Amino acid sequence: MKSHTTYLTMNVPARTGFRNITREVEEAVRASGVAEGLCLVNAMHITASVFINDDESGLHRDYARWLEELAPHEPSRYEHNRTGEDNGDAHHKRQIMGREVVVAVTRGKLDFGPWERIFYGEFDGRRAKRVLVKVIGE
Amino acid sequence: MKSHTTYLTMNVPARTGFRNITREVEEAVRASGVAEGLCLVNAMHITASVFINDDESGLHRDYARWLEELAPHEPSRYEHNRTGEDNGDAHHKRQIMGREVVVAVTRGKLDFGPWERIFYGEFDGRRAKRVLVKVIGE
Amino acid sequence: MKSHTTYLTMNVPARTGFRNITREVEEAVRASGVAEGLCLVNAMHITASVFINDDESGLHRDYARWLEELAPHEPSRYEHNRTGEDNGDAHHKRQIMGREVVVAVTRGKLDFGPWERIFYGEFDGRRAKRVLVKVIGE
Repeated sequence: MKSHTTYLTMNVPARTGFRNITREVEEAVRASGVAEGLCLVNAMHITASVFINDDESGLHRDYARWLEELAPHEPSRYEHNRTGEDNGDAHHKRQIMGREVVVAVTRGKLDFGPWERIFYGEFDGRRAKRVLVKVIGE
Repeated sequence: MKSHTTYLTMNVPARTGFRNITREVEEAVRASGVAEGLCLVNAMHITASVFINDDESGLHRDYARWLEELAPHEPSRYEHNRTGEDNGDAHHKRQIMGREVVVAVTRGKLDFGPWERIFYGEFDGRRAKRVLVKVIGE
Repeated sequence: MKSHTTYLTMNVPARTGFRNITREVEEAVRASGVAEGLCLVNAMHITASVFINDDESGLHRDYARWLEELAPHEPSRYEHNRTGEDNGDAHHKRQIMGREVVVAVTRGKLDFGPWERIFYGEFDGRRAKRVLVKVIGE
């Protein structure tokens, strides 16, 4: 069994933002030399997400607005913020969008449907955060 | 390490619907010859989900109603629909229900609790879509 | 390829509760002897979740309140409860928080960001339930 681990560093200058990281994950799969296996991609921070959806900026603005409706930023809403934080909402938004994706690797490539792309979703940005990519297989 | 990849084709004639695909996944596990490993099952389309829950039609109607409350179909709500689509809601519903499940394979079988069943959730149907099943292990 | 499977038993005396199970998962990783691989942790029951977030009790109270807003317990809201159950809400709350996490194992340890901890989320407790931990790799 082969395995390969890579860490990406994300720098989103705003509180919220989405970044297409498909190319970086494809590069990790190539570097792994794995032909058949699984690829895990996860946010290493608990106020960020990794998810798969469409690379369409209107949709991303829809997501940002919808997440703000479901879990508004308003700091006074969250008991968590009594610890001195103001990111209680980000811990909720991340649960909706998810922490990780697991993608099949087939014949050396991400085995994707026509529109699948991998995104990093930031909900408490303005600082460096990491994403883990781990490929295992043969 | 062994690996085995199968693609299922889903045809849901309505916009929304749930299909129990547990038997097809069990068949893929058998075909893989894997005794100990992991099985990934994911929607290959970004307006559909794969999830694990109860095979109970009342619950599925509850899910459909609840998802419609959280992300109503109404096309004018979504900037995404300005691209000519009318499925912005489906991209949101899929994020709630999830893209994929990873299931343990133990002694050659899906290692399930008493009520776990695998479902395909369609949120923009009336056309063929695919589900990927990948089993790796030994 | 090595594999190791463990089952944890959870006993949450209230309907809803969160338990940090990181130590038990770390123990399973150690017992597996896997240096490089993947670790799956999933609820085996469909009214419970396994998720990764912060070990902060205020945040957990925020989650409980928020999930109650998104999917209120009120039994008459759910067609599922006509089967004799009163846990329709729990099947919805679990979809928001997720069934499972997949964590990278690197150099024999859970490859975690600074604040990542694994939690069991119970939404229909007062009885024993199980969590599966499966480690594969080399």
